[in-house]
Amino acid sequence: MDLKIYRKDAYYSYTLGAFPTIELLKHHPQDVLKIIVHSSFKNQEILNLIADLKGNKEMIINDKLINKLCQKDNCYIVGIFKKYSSHLDINNDHIVLYNPSNMGNVGTILRSALGFNIKDVAIIKPGVDIFDPKVLRSAMGAFFSLNIEYFDSYESYVRKFPDHQKITFMLKAKETLQNKRFENVKTSLIFGNEATGLPEELLNEHSLLISHSQAIDSLNLPNAVSIALYEFAKQKNRNFQ
Amino acid sequence: MDLKIYRKDAYYSYTLGAFPTIELLKHHPQDVLKIIVHSSFKNQEILNLIADLKGNKEMIINDKLINKLCQKDNCYIVGIFKKYSSHLDINNDHIVLYNPSNMGNVGTILRSALGFNIKDVAIIKPGVDIFDPKVLRSAMGAFFSLNIEYFDSYESYVRKFPDHQKITFMLKAKETLQNKRFENVKTSLIFGNEATGLPEELLNEHSLLISHSQAIDSLNLPNAVSIALYEFAKQKNRNFQ
Repeated sequence: MDLKIYRKDAYYSYTLGAFPTIELLKHHPQDVLKIIVHSSFKNQEILNLIADLKGNKEMIINDKLINKLCQKDNCYIVGIFKKYSSHLDINNDHIVLYNPSNMGNVGTILRSALGFNIKDVAIIKPGVDIFDPKVLRSAMGAFFSLNIEYFDSYESYVRKFPDHQKITFMLKAKETLQNKRFENVKTSLIFGNEATGLPEELLNEHSLLISHSQAIDSLNLPNAVSIALYEFAKQKNRNFQ
Repeated sequence: MDLKIYRKDAYYSYTLGAFPTIELLKHHPQDVLKIIVHSSFKNQEILNLIADLKGNKEMIINDKLINKLCQKDNCYIVGIFKKYSSHLDINNDHIVLYNPSNMGNVGTILRSALGFNIKDVAIIKPGVDIFDPKVLRSAMGAFFSLNIEYFDSYESYVRKFPDHQKITFMLKAKETLQNKRFENVKTSLIFGNEATGLPEELLNEHSLLISHSQAIDSLNLPNAVSIALYEFAKQKNRNFQ
């Protein structure tokens, strides 16, 4: 196994840092290939935890490899894992990201999604490669607790989940999130590309606008998604304590 | 004027792209030094608007300089301006960012702030250089409509604005944003550093937690600020239409 800087066509990816590596080991132990530790890492508590979680997987010290994989970041633990596929749960509410193009944005959205207990995220292609370490890094460990599924088109998502109420977030929507009362139905919260938003034909009777001042064109995508998730979870009385 | 890539100690900074340059010209015409256009930029409507707004300021074509200042970005219009100072309005609600360290985050927060009609942002030092083009870029033009003021310490902010209700967002807060009813008083919404949050001594009777699942450590800073701004504006019945 000659480990190289991540490429989209590689069969493996890797976590950078102790926290996401621990999340990887907790939620996808079967996909872990190897743990790499920097020789200067001396936090015994974390090393013991990782040794506990890793089972019979290899754990090696290799400073040169860590420096190569981490590039400009400072990191001392890397978890190499086999990419896997997962599927959305039909019984859950979903987030749908339509052609998301920024890796940091998608990672941040995944972190907020888990924060507000949405565990199923659809990505309508083309969209970022979710296994890119840049996505994993900004998801900060949240990645491994989620079901993330790619769809070739919006239509193929709708065919698979016809009964979810499709709430499309669009600047042209007539109703605002601020005035919305979410119904007690399975829901898809659907957000467009960073620059181009959603196609006009997705405007429907459930479309919502997050009302904001005319002084800005739009909210930044992860901020818009986080606001919608907050309001949705609040109305569903999800108790996080 | 030999224009160089931005440095913190330079007396000038610059906008990258047409939209932020137009916002600069609209809100700070007196601080504009020069407009630079790429020879391949042919959108006559935008060129006319800029020509109208720029008054007697110089507008030149210089492809080499644009390429130098834009670095990896694609941009065709650059606005060079003199850095200026501004002061918070005592009659307004404020956002206070305590030691923010990520330039993209601060820019994104400024964009959400303007989106929810908060026009006054304090930065407690040390904090990012708000005039760095990386901040301006992610603020997407919102920058020039805001009052942004640096303070040497939290105490110096409090001394200047003793009567604002200080709402500190902290993971240790007892009350949640979800249950909060904002009072009809001048308010400071106060957020900590990305990695370290706010110092414990800032916990007070107005502190708030944005309640989220235990599966994540915390929300990403711009997402947390945006959620708080959304809820605050919603309760204040700010009408954005």
